[in-house]
Amino acid sequence: MAFRLKPGERLDDLMTKGLCLIQSDEVFAFSMDAVLLAHFATVRPNDSVLDLGTGNGVIPILLTTRTRRPLKRIVGLELQERLADMARRSVEGNGLQHLIEIVQGDLRDAASLFGYEEFDLVTCNPPYRPVGQGDPNANESVRIARHEVTCTLRDAVQAAAKMVKSGGKTAFVHRPDRLADLLHELRCARLEPKRLRLVHPRLQQRPNIVLVEAIKNGKPDLRIDPPLIIYGPDGNWTPEIEALYNGGRRSDEEDL
Amino acid sequence: MAFRLKPGERLDDLMTKGLCLIQSDEVFAFSMDAVLLAHFATVRPNDSVLDLGTGNGVIPILLTTRTRRPLKRIVGLELQERLADMARRSVEGNGLQHLIEIVQGDLRDAASLFGYEEFDLVTCNPPYRPVGQGDPNANESVRIARHEVTCTLRDAVQAAAKMVKSGGKTAFVHRPDRLADLLHELRCARLEPKRLRLVHPRLQQRPNIVLVEAIKNGKPDLRIDPPLIIYGPDGNWTPEIEALYNGGRRSDEEDL
Repeated sequence: MAFRLKPGERLDDLMTKGLCLIQSDEVFAFSMDAVLLAHFATVRPNDSVLDLGTGNGVIPILLTTRTRRPLKRIVGLELQERLADMARRSVEGNGLQHLIEIVQGDLRDAASLFGYEEFDLVTCNPPYRPVGQGDPNANESVRIARHEVTCTLRDAVQAAAKMVKSGGKTAFVHRPDRLADLLHELRCARLEPKRLRLVHPRLQQRPNIVLVEAIKNGKPDLRIDPPLIIYGPDGNWTPEIEALYNGGRRSDEEDL
Repeated sequence: MAFRLKPGERLDDLMTKGLCLIQSDEVFAFSMDAVLLAHFATVRPNDSVLDLGTGNGVIPILLTTRTRRPLKRIVGLELQERLADMARRSVEGNGLQHLIEIVQGDLRDAASLFGYEEFDLVTCNPPYRPVGQGDPNANESVRIARHEVTCTLRDAVQAAAKMVKSGGKTAFVHRPDRLADLLHELRCARLEPKRLRLVHPRLQQRPNIVLVEAIKNGKPDLRIDPPLIIYGPDGNWTPEIEALYNGGRRSDEEDL
């Protein structure tokens, strides 16, 4: 395997099964949020998966580690051509082009690109901040990834609702201050929230990440999981976080 | 002070400032949920407070301990005459009749009883379970308190929305499996969820109680607090729970 790097790019180790990712300081880099989402989503062998706003492709690449038997296919949809190009080269470098397809396009056009209700699972790590909040000096690429410039939360939820099969799952990561928005938009789109987890930097601190799984046309019945704590009292990652990185594949087959 | 007990009733110690409560095995008894809600709600001196579905009056009575300077008034509205009667006698027994009024009536008629937007704070510990779920053999009084027989979550939220002033607060306690319902109904009623806390029996367990505060006509911006844990690793109440009971008045004046 060889990664075709372009000027200004670097190769980062995903610390999972030898996978690597092409990144660049000039565009949005993935954060722990994406790693947490890739491990939170319920994935089963032979699933078709769509990752909306895939960025540099970190979620599709990590999803390949979640099941012992392979997924059917993973599509990563990304608006920005530069990020889509980086994602494609990361997929190739990791030898995953038989499983993962990166498509450049707008998630609001997803149905015309792929057809309705084609996926068992739709994941999305959307822009978190409304337009007008925070770092106005960030470059355009970072601004599009972080702010709802080209994609509001409602756009993302509605795209997921169109693309997932009835009874299929969607998984979102977002900020706690938007949780009411997220649950409301999901329900309005007939994506019923079924599982929620809050991620706290430390036990005594407020959460800074929320993970929500919803089922299309599901019955109301939300399960809230125990809190996920990032750092223990010793200042190191807790065992649960440690396991996400160091080869910690959590096979859903084995959970069943 | 003297508590006028009727046959089948007992006097329970609220373990807070010497307060007591008349209870009976024949009707719904208060649980920790009510205690948690009474301490979760934001209360300020001189506030007018309405407690919807007040049962035996535990929330109004506990709310009197929350501020150093007194509240203006607390109204407890209860559908069941027997519970309202018990609540009135508990109020008198605790010498709180100058502060607390217990009214027998249906929360769906609250606006005609008290007028619109009369309260700074509306609290509610509503029936948790949809009709048809669980203990069909419970007696009628318990069934009305536990199940949405006479009051759905939407009824409770809409009553709160009518009774609270614009910019005023509402505080609800409910089960985690209904969190999506609760946040959705609040938002639909223009009660914007602003603060949320999950209560876990133990750190590694799922929450069994959610507390939500919403502001009428507030802007979307939810703050999620650190988890509230009931039992520590030693099996005893954590210091935070201990403090709620043993005279642990948390004065909002002192917090300001």
